[in-house]
Amino acid sequence: MPEINAERVLADLHALRSVAAYKTGVHRPTLSAAHIVSLQWLEAELGAIGHETKIDGIANVFGFAPVSGPKILAGSHLESQNHAGWLDGPLGIVYALEAARAIHADPAFANCGVDVVSCCDEEGHFGSFLGSRSAVGELDDTALDAAKDRTNGKRMRDALAAAGFAGKPRHVVDPKRYIGFLEAHIEQGDWLIVKDLTIGIVTTIVGIRQYRITFEGFQNHAGTTRMAIRRDAGAALVRLAAEVDATFPAMAAPGTVWTVGRIDVTPGAPSVIPGHAEMLLQTRDPDNQVLDRLEAAVTKLVGDANSNGPCKVSIEQTRRTEPAVMAPLLMDAIRDAAEAHVPGRHQDMPSGAGHDAMVFSRHMPSSMLFVPSIGGISHHWTENTSDADIVMGARVFVDAAARLLKAAR
Amino acid sequence: MPEINAERVLADLHALRSVAAYKTGVHRPTLSAAHIVSLQWLEAELGAIGHETKIDGIANVFGFAPVSGPKILAGSHLESQNHAGWLDGPLGIVYALEAARAIHADPAFANCGVDVVSCCDEEGHFGSFLGSRSAVGELDDTALDAAKDRTNGKRMRDALAAAGFAGKPRHVVDPKRYIGFLEAHIEQGDWLIVKDLTIGIVTTIVGIRQYRITFEGFQNHAGTTRMAIRRDAGAALVRLAAEVDATFPAMAAPGTVWTVGRIDVTPGAPSVIPGHAEMLLQTRDPDNQVLDRLEAAVTKLVGDANSNGPCKVSIEQTRRTEPAVMAPLLMDAIRDAAEAHVPGRHQDMPSGAGHDAMVFSRHMPSSMLFVPSIGGISHHWTENTSDADIVMGARVFVDAAARLLKAAR
Repeated sequence: MPEINAERVLADLHALRSVAAYKTGVHRPTLSAAHIVSLQWLEAELGAIGHETKIDGIANVFGFAPVSGPKILAGSHLESQNHAGWLDGPLGIVYALEAARAIHADPAFANCGVDVVSCCDEEGHFGSFLGSRSAVGELDDTALDAAKDRTNGKRMRDALAAAGFAGKPRHVVDPKRYIGFLEAHIEQGDWLIVKDLTIGIVTTIVGIRQYRITFEGFQNHAGTTRMAIRRDAGAALVRLAAEVDATFPAMAAPGTVWTVGRIDVTPGAPSVIPGHAEMLLQTRDPDNQVLDRLEAAVTKLVGDANSNGPCKVSIEQTRRTEPAVMAPLLMDAIRDAAEAHVPGRHQDMPSGAGHDAMVFSRHMPSSMLFVPSIGGISHHWTENTSDADIVMGARVFVDAAARLLKAAR
Repeated sequence: MPEINAERVLADLHALRSVAAYKTGVHRPTLSAAHIVSLQWLEAELGAIGHETKIDGIANVFGFAPVSGPKILAGSHLESQNHAGWLDGPLGIVYALEAARAIHADPAFANCGVDVVSCCDEEGHFGSFLGSRSAVGELDDTALDAAKDRTNGKRMRDALAAAGFAGKPRHVVDPKRYIGFLEAHIEQGDWLIVKDLTIGIVTTIVGIRQYRITFEGFQNHAGTTRMAIRRDAGAALVRLAAEVDATFPAMAAPGTVWTVGRIDVTPGAPSVIPGHAEMLLQTRDPDNQVLDRLEAAVTKLVGDANSNGPCKVSIEQTRRTEPAVMAPLLMDAIRDAAEAHVPGRHQDMPSGAGHDAMVFSRHMPSSMLFVPSIGGISHHWTENTSDADIVMGARVFVDAAARLLKAAR
């Protein structure tokens, strides 16, 4: 079987870290100078093993194995969240690169190959999975024209032009070329680490529903307005959010999560009764039936709040992402490889976060491999995984790819 | 008894309204051009009845009656909240001016007088009761140096200089000169209007306590972090705010009010578990014992939240204003005048809002007269009072002043 080079895997990850170091993490926003350096680094590494390479018109990096036999597409992303962790993205890129090298170097796999893709902006600085959607042909030019950096408002077109990618075509992959798409990623939660497991085999990427709940009251003087006649939009929001907190646990599945990530109370002055308030509620679960149940529950709470007064409450769904089911063929290969290297120390699990594999799964069989996150920390510069787990993850990933290629050979 | 001129009272109020009209209200922030015009208007009107006038170094307007007998100090403020009502402030100024005119015009009160004061910035654009605190000698230059406009950050010193008031001394009143301080104001609540009453006699201006309650959790990924291990600062805030909502009613007095006017949840993104949250809680009651009770209750809720986890919760008192007790001598005069003009249609009541009378009451006997606010609306351009109530308020106010002067003559 193809062998990985553990030192090279760690060295590659540290090379990418050093491009954009921030404390023990990195700051490598999409199309920042550091991000572009990392794309060029990947292109050079792929070129070094004889892959045909390109960085396309949306800054996706591709490396195509010049072989006639079975091929796998593997990859992830290279940009980071602002001031975030060093492995979120690069881990999947380095595993894919290592798989391409190991397969390339193994004479038994002479006609097989691993194509590598780095999908631009998985972290959503400019939009939602723009790079992978472009790679599967789901992104039209109008959507790309409209994309702007959420941090500084800069147009993605301008950022691409500044990086020298303007006018380049955007490559769309041919699903028929591949057995499927494989992506490795840090878990970003603590399911693996608390159970002392090494490998997660992703079965589903959760569906996401997001709601804006709006409360219209009446702004008035906080000293002179009796409690009985107030129409306090902030108080109405607190009551509804507390009811969500109280009722959701009984109807959620064990892995369901829900979050009120944003609360806005207007005008926000200590002596003024809020006249307007908004909250964003997000629910995630692999099972649409669970999400339907929670949606019905919060819709009823909103209706009850409206009936009971004193504020007008409304709910609007602002996002709906369907759960993405991973392919048994690929899951089996990851599970078999994990059982071979870390017997009993793996589990099937859903992904609570969205990933490029979610986009690819709509066009070809896809699955993901997770490695443990220390403390379950994610989107923070303290995010980390032990070297031992990083290396074992690479070993299982490359073995899984080899098993798939061998079976198709 | 001195007679008011009802048409003149209404005409004066409309004249002040026209200086800064915004919809049916006004926009006349402290030291805006419109505010300065209104100060000059008042000075001219006071000069017209022979008062000695000045606009001092903090833009307080004074008019001193040139008489040797008993005197009352009366007044309020001329600036408005941003885009707010036309009577909040000007009503008390016009009543004071009308009292000065009516007493001046009545030969039976030849040796008596009503001094008039317009206190700058009661509405707190630059600070807390800066004008009245200056007028009673409570404001030092250092505090004035530090005052900045909460809307645009402009220094009050610069705004005063631009208006031509730089270098002028700030006048401090001599309490021995006066029987006391009288202020009229719109109620700003709906106690009078719902009971179909015409006059409120203010017994106490409420004490105010304000708290910042801070929640420290841990910011993490809203998709990958299990509910069981979350330290969601926003969820902790919602729980505590809901507990305040649930427990305060049973321990409050009938007139107690409490408000969560501000909620901040950080970072405020839909897919990020809030790591930090803050709320501002304000309580108001005329009775310190009630405020003590609420303070003990919220402090216990914070302690319980800390003990039960998962977030670190702390509470800090950021403001404490003592209740201000009004003077029986002045309250009696207002009540007797009200009973004479609107028998049975008046009531003693606390003020839920702070007023300049609160500051003056620390230095001389003080009281306030309230007229009804339609719908209890305040700090909004739709604030209003019927012409009939405005005129009757002026009649009762002038009568009360006359009764006090007559008794002291």
